[in-house]
Amino acid sequence: MNITDLRSDTVTRPTPDMLQAMFAAQVGDDVYQEDPTINALEQKAAALFGLEAGLFCPSGTMTNQIAIKAHTEPMTEVICDITAHIYQYEGGGIMFNSGASVALVHGERGKMTPAQVEAHIRPDNIHYPPTRLVALENTCNKGGGSYYTLAEIAAISEVCKRHGIALHLDGARVFNALIASGENPQEYGKYFDSISICLSKGLGAPVGSLLLGKQDFIKKSRRIRKVLGGGIRQGGYLAAAGIYALDHHVERLAEDHAKAKQLETVLNEADYVEFVLPVQTNIVIFKLNDRYKDADFVAALAENNIRASSFGPQMVRFVTHLDVSDEMLQHVLQVLHTLNKKQVEV
Amino acid sequence: MNITDLRSDTVTRPTPDMLQAMFAAQVGDDVYQEDPTINALEQKAAALFGLEAGLFCPSGTMTNQIAIKAHTEPMTEVICDITAHIYQYEGGGIMFNSGASVALVHGERGKMTPAQVEAHIRPDNIHYPPTRLVALENTCNKGGGSYYTLAEIAAISEVCKRHGIALHLDGARVFNALIASGENPQEYGKYFDSISICLSKGLGAPVGSLLLGKQDFIKKSRRIRKVLGGGIRQGGYLAAAGIYALDHHVERLAEDHAKAKQLETVLNEADYVEFVLPVQTNIVIFKLNDRYKDADFVAALAENNIRASSFGPQMVRFVTHLDVSDEMLQHVLQVLHTLNKKQVEV
Amino acid sequence: MNITDLRSDTVTRPTPDMLQAMFAAQVGDDVYQEDPTINALEQKAAALFGLEAGLFCPSGTMTNQIAIKAHTEPMTEVICDITAHIYQYEGGGIMFNSGASVALVHGERGKMTPAQVEAHIRPDNIHYPPTRLVALENTCNKGGGSYYTLAEIAAISEVCKRHGIALHLDGARVFNALIASGENPQEYGKYFDSISICLSKGLGAPVGSLLLGKQDFIKKSRRIRKVLGGGIRQGGYLAAAGIYALDHHVERLAEDHAKAKQLETVLNEADYVEFVLPVQTNIVIFKLNDRYKDADFVAALAENNIRASSFGPQMVRFVTHLDVSDEMLQHVLQVLHTLNKKQVEV
Amino acid sequence: MNITDLRSDTVTRPTPDMLQAMFAAQVGDDVYQEDPTINALEQKAAALFGLEAGLFCPSGTMTNQIAIKAHTEPMTEVICDITAHIYQYEGGGIMFNSGASVALVHGERGKMTPAQVEAHIRPDNIHYPPTRLVALENTCNKGGGSYYTLAEIAAISEVCKRHGIALHLDGARVFNALIASGENPQEYGKYFDSISICLSKGLGAPVGSLLLGKQDFIKKSRRIRKVLGGGIRQGGYLAAAGIYALDHHVERLAEDHAKAKQLETVLNEADYVEFVLPVQTNIVIFKLNDRYKDADFVAALAENNIRASSFGPQMVRFVTHLDVSDEMLQHVLQVLHTLNKKQVEV
Repeated sequence: MNITDLRSDTVTRPTPDMLQAMFAAQVGDDVYQEDPTINALEQKAAALFGLEAGLFCPSGTMTNQIAIKAHTEPMTEVICDITAHIYQYEGGGIMFNSGASVALVHGERGKMTPAQVEAHIRPDNIHYPPTRLVALENTCNKGGGSYYTLAEIAAISEVCKRHGIALHLDGARVFNALIASGENPQEYGKYFDSISICLSKGLGAPVGSLLLGKQDFIKKSRRIRKVLGGGIRQGGYLAAAGIYALDHHVERLAEDHAKAKQLETVLNEADYVEFVLPVQTNIVIFKLNDRYKDADFVAALAENNIRASSFGPQMVRFVTHLDVSDEMLQHVLQVLHTLNKKQVEV
Repeated sequence: MNITDLRSDTVTRPTPDMLQAMFAAQVGDDVYQEDPTINALEQKAAALFGLEAGLFCPSGTMTNQIAIKAHTEPMTEVICDITAHIYQYEGGGIMFNSGASVALVHGERGKMTPAQVEAHIRPDNIHYPPTRLVALENTCNKGGGSYYTLAEIAAISEVCKRHGIALHLDGARVFNALIASGENPQEYGKYFDSISICLSKGLGAPVGSLLLGKQDFIKKSRRIRKVLGGGIRQGGYLAAAGIYALDHHVERLAEDHAKAKQLETVLNEADYVEFVLPVQTNIVIFKLNDRYKDADFVAALAENNIRASSFGPQMVRFVTHLDVSDEMLQHVLQVLHTLNKKQVEV
Repeated sequence: MNITDLRSDTVTRPTPDMLQAMFAAQVGDDVYQEDPTINALEQKAAALFGLEAGLFCPSGTMTNQIAIKAHTEPMTEVICDITAHIYQYEGGGIMFNSGASVALVHGERGKMTPAQVEAHIRPDNIHYPPTRLVALENTCNKGGGSYYTLAEIAAISEVCKRHGIALHLDGARVFNALIASGENPQEYGKYFDSISICLSKGLGAPVGSLLLGKQDFIKKSRRIRKVLGGGIRQGGYLAAAGIYALDHHVERLAEDHAKAKQLETVLNEADYVEFVLPVQTNIVIFKLNDRYKDADFVAALAENNIRASSFGPQMVRFVTHLDVSDEMLQHVLQVLHTLNKKQVEV
Repeated sequence: MNITDLRSDTVTRPTPDMLQAMFAAQVGDDVYQEDPTINALEQKAAALFGLEAGLFCPSGTMTNQIAIKAHTEPMTEVICDITAHIYQYEGGGIMFNSGASVALVHGERGKMTPAQVEAHIRPDNIHYPPTRLVALENTCNKGGGSYYTLAEIAAISEVCKRHGIALHLDGARVFNALIASGENPQEYGKYFDSISICLSKGLGAPVGSLLLGKQDFIKKSRRIRKVLGGGIRQGGYLAAAGIYALDHHVERLAEDHAKAKQLETVLNEADYVEFVLPVQTNIVIFKLNDRYKDADFVAALAENNIRASSFGPQMVRFVTHLDVSDEMLQHVLQVLHTLNKKQVEV
């Protein structure tokens, strides 16, 4: 039987049609900016979010790290939620790549309020690193797929503009937020100075992220990408998958969200679950009670050909994506059901 | 009338006897390690804390920053309390000088428990910066002069040793902790891999801090000091003040503590105070209620020739030290009393 | 008519057979180390050079920068030739990514002697950054495709081992050196602590480089790659091109070398050429006399559908590669001939 | 007998009058910018060089490193002579503190020409770190005390201004240059964006250097000094020595220069000397022939109570200063004479 892999939406493989698009791609040397497919993808994505230019990079960590570097100098500070990917999962890159400090907000499921952001802006004093950047993550991974609405974003943007501070979006899963909220990506460009979007999560492309911003910001970012080693040559094969994904894999994210809701329902009824973070997109985070250690629970799933992630003490994360078929979902739901004690004892 | 300066214990000026000791110092070129007074001070301080060697530096920020650099590499992480001076008041130096990340513990008045420390150690995972250093501050400045006992230090040291993580002490005011607890500095060397002590706070010397540790650690630190620009030449004049301070100004810290308690008593009775952090050493931090904005309160004191520090929204800090005489204290107590509303209205 | 692109061997596009191999690749999520094609390529390349492990990266700049970071700490120094790609063309990455200094050797056509290397090793003195790494480039790009023999490499390796200094190879064009010298890549593993090889230069793959070394070095490098943002997901499509290239495109580099020799012959007879660096592999660097400014000469070629690189004042570089057919070469030779003055005047 | 220490002009001890001035100093907490003597020194030095503001620092390494940091960003480049103190003797600080690259000019006795500077400015290309700073050293230590004239400085300044690049002076021994040339320090402020001057070399103060520049540059530098740990408290004792030195120890540098000329004369006649760099100020660098190894020669001097520095293979450096009396000089001259072979053999 096939493995159902709920560890992350990064694990997807290209569909046959996406693969077809990849190998039909026109390519060139992107260090000379001569790869027509990369150029087309960069322009398409920038236009989609109401920004001027884009930069194709090997990973979302790179797009985030470049943006942080481009917006800050050493001895300055970045404000983000304590759960943010840029702080938690990028290996200390903010400090290493940018020499910048962090002010960590304790938001609600990864979401900061404008008041929290403002309270963390440093006064002008020689003892403090000046605040230069606020970074949001949308959706919030560690927040269980929670998302900011445009109105919430606009309010934080207003704080940033008032203080002359840049606003970056880690939009690794921003398409999930857009599908869930029904909002228009065009509006994002009004509020963010830079946006990172990922092609290899819910969108299903094999490799790549894009950094979006104004022309001069992207020019500066291109130089930083070079020094980090992110300048690639004939990458149009990967970019073609990204174009295909933007054309065909955005609307279908609603299916992943529906599947996540079904998982939430079953988990809420399970006798081994302490709580489930209310599902808003394609991420399901739940806490086990003392019936299972998280490692044992993940092992029990593995015996049933289901892969999931331990996500901190007693916490487990499921992520739905385009390689989780209806059939696979039914199998998972059934396994989750059979793990109930009473069920087993009957 | 003279100014009573309660802003910080850094503002003291040398006593006539200390100045006499400075004036009589033998000096040499310390870059060649030929300043006899600096050499003597380094050895004296190291011996006092049960460590092998010392390094004289222009400031406590430098001793802390060198220690962090020497214990870490870029892409690793430091655990400290969120109130720690190294995180809050050193301009983002952890990230700038060391390229290291921070894990911030929310302790009690600046003090972390062993369990909190252990919970913040990162698992071995490519997404996380490996934890390399735990840093304590004793006494805790933002904690209102609270202090760790040796038993508490030993318990945190045990966690560090078990995980192979270094333990640093920011001992800017460690002599206040030692006088308050009655404990022996010799014991500190058993628990800490490095200790920073400051000569120009409660001890009353004009300039300088010392970094203490093992021989090879200090050798490495000497190189780092050179690159940061902290290598000085005939600094024995400053070191002589440090030797004098260690000989004559430690025991007298008890007087500063007694003065701080008197301030606490009056503030606890004042109708403009919401709360006072219980005084343990020479720092008095209190919160104003809505009768005064902190800036207005500080201004009201200034009109009475008293200087104090705003210390966050509605917060004020007083620090007692050897340039606060008994007479000055009486003046401050009286002014604090007269600021009561009823008093004024009668 | 088609463009003949002699700017660099990076401009090649996959052959139909290589594309077929890419299209058929098995892929997985390489952040979880589950991409079978990437894993196979890493092992294949490591074995080829007599080393234990490999790491697939988006670019040769990244493999070099990771190696430098892994071998050094901030405040240490790297020795390389002044023409080295790591110093000249990686945007200041040695200093930015590693905080390390450089000692620049003025070698012969990019090649350092063991005596030159040894003379640049710093004595143990607090004023100097300790030497930690020597980096060779083979072939030498700015040296006009010159190469080190194994005997020369062994002699430099001996100096490094005697001083406890690591030795890295920037092998962006190492296959050209191996084909020209007829030497065995297996021998390289005896002398180098790390090797960077490039798949997207003479080998003709679209994207990617590999860093090779011992197991623990590669483990450390994997973490650095993550922080730089070089961790990709389903990159097996690119790795498949690399495997194909190692199997089919190494021996044929001899053809590129032969073409470069033909260019050298014609240039040596041209009346607009001051000198040609004697051709050893696939790079032809020559200096124009005052008959042409380099920009005008490059423009004159462009009018004839030939692209070349200005390479410093009055210098021009040609690079041969698998997308330069015999027919294209004849066209270039003829154009170079017709640019002679007498020819034109007759 | 007393030691005659010719190792460096850093070894001087304060004269009785300087010491008197130090201990009469008014002091305050300089972190609050309340030390009146430091404030006075900063203003005095800035005015002397025709600049707006000054910053007192513990060492010339720190003033240089702060200036480099303030003028550059990571991933940019500094042009200096290969002999420059900032590159050779500051432990790799350019790269560590600023993450900046270096372009190294091979000038004449440490002095670069405008044409050399211009040739090292990087073109606008993503592969290169943009040039941000040119740094001169005046006098040139490794150049044997050679100096730039104002006309030479003006010509380099013109290149910098034309390219929008800052110009910094490492003026550790700038007073020696001014005395030798008879030029006016006021003129310097027209050409340099920042100047570092040292109080503890020829001027004879025990500790300290000053960074001079425009108001906003010094404001930025003050923040950097804080993060490096160079912010001191009651440093007025040291600053008083600096004020005294500026008032009393500048003109007398001519005596040091005369003594250095006398040393040059005797060395030029010595049979163990290959050559002496023609003496221009207070530094005498000479090369030994094969009659002595440099270490043996330095040891032979030491037996005669004279200390000197090995300064590279077969090279020796003498530096004259205010602690080298006429009597000491006569002793040195005599010893140098007696080390001649024939002399010894007679």
